[in-house]
Amino acid sequence: MAHITIIGTGNMANAIGGLFADGGSSVTYIAREAVGTAAVEGDIVVLAVPYPAVDGILAAYEGQLAGKTVVDITNPLNFETFDELVVPAGSSAAALIQHKLPASHVVKAFNTNFAATLASKKVGDLDTTVLLAGDDANAKAQLAAAIEAGGVSAIDAGALSRAHELEALGFLQLTAAVGEKLPWTGGFAVAR
Amino acid sequence: MAHITIIGTGNMANAIGGLFADGGSSVTYIAREAVGTAAVEGDIVVLAVPYPAVDGILAAYEGQLAGKTVVDITNPLNFETFDELVVPAGSSAAALIQHKLPASHVVKAFNTNFAATLASKKVGDLDTTVLLAGDDANAKAQLAAAIEAGGVSAIDAGALSRAHELEALGFLQLTAAVGEKLPWTGGFAVAR
Repeated sequence: MAHITIIGTGNMANAIGGLFADGGSSVTYIAREAVGTAAVEGDIVVLAVPYPAVDGILAAYEGQLAGKTVVDITNPLNFETFDELVVPAGSSAAALIQHKLPASHVVKAFNTNFAATLASKKVGDLDTTVLLAGDDANAKAQLAAAIEAGGVSAIDAGALSRAHELEALGFLQLTAAVGEKLPWTGGFAVAR
Repeated sequence: MAHITIIGTGNMANAIGGLFADGGSSVTYIAREAVGTAAVEGDIVVLAVPYPAVDGILAAYEGQLAGKTVVDITNPLNFETFDELVVPAGSSAAALIQHKLPASHVVKAFNTNFAATLASKKVGDLDTTVLLAGDDANAKAQLAAAIEAGGVSAIDAGALSRAHELEALGFLQLTAAVGEKLPWTGGFAVAR
């Protein structure tokens, strides 16, 4: 399977890394304190950090990310108001990252999955599904294969422009959970 | 329970009307051919028509809708490309309707529910949940009560500004179903 670097060591980083390891991928973690000193390895790099931390990582690794699949998991909410996103209307964090990394293949993924649902592979009683969006079909297929090898479904939601809608879904789900209308072990599940 | 007028007689109109009737509400339908001649009755009016048909209905009933709860169920997609919404970036069909009906209480609802999941009250194996957004708490509470009386859950997703995110969710779900990645009897279910 793939060799994957995960930048970040929080709940989401651990849940995503655990999923890939379950699928037989080789996973390297870079703690945020080591950003810029530790080397990025493999074909897939997951930016498993809050949105405000992304720019510093891109600045530190810009050259090393060329040609790689860069996975953006962020929900760029205004966490003071929980009432708006901090990216321009109609755009997305993923689109902004792709603009800053023109030589990388940016894929939006995991922003609609709470960490607990990646660790348990269940959203309530249903199997967890990861929604992806990106413009490079090979990058999406490689990422989907690594996810599915770990025992979680993946759905290709379309081009990178669909990251706007994935971030809207993440926004709704986060505000509903913060408002105690959804549990952090549940949320929007894909039902077939 | 409530007295509800449903404008439209398609799949969504019938599924929504059936749900309200199951809950003991009184339901009156107005076929699109009768718009402007049939009277709007009750406190809640559901615009169960495709988005391009909404403006004609508002023009025909503007005066009669004052003081009422007006329910917008539309997904304002460009149905030729399935790649964009036809409302301005960051806005929503519901916000535009509210702007045209300043004396009404607009609530976004049902746009994230496929008709079959309202008729069966199941999304796959999970119970169906209707997501609502609107600025008038009483209007949302009355609508939620009529929905829940029919045996379907309702979640208040927040202010009318959240209709943007609900329409993004509807967009994702529709394009996934059209692309045969989701069945029309399933989709995004709320898992607890």
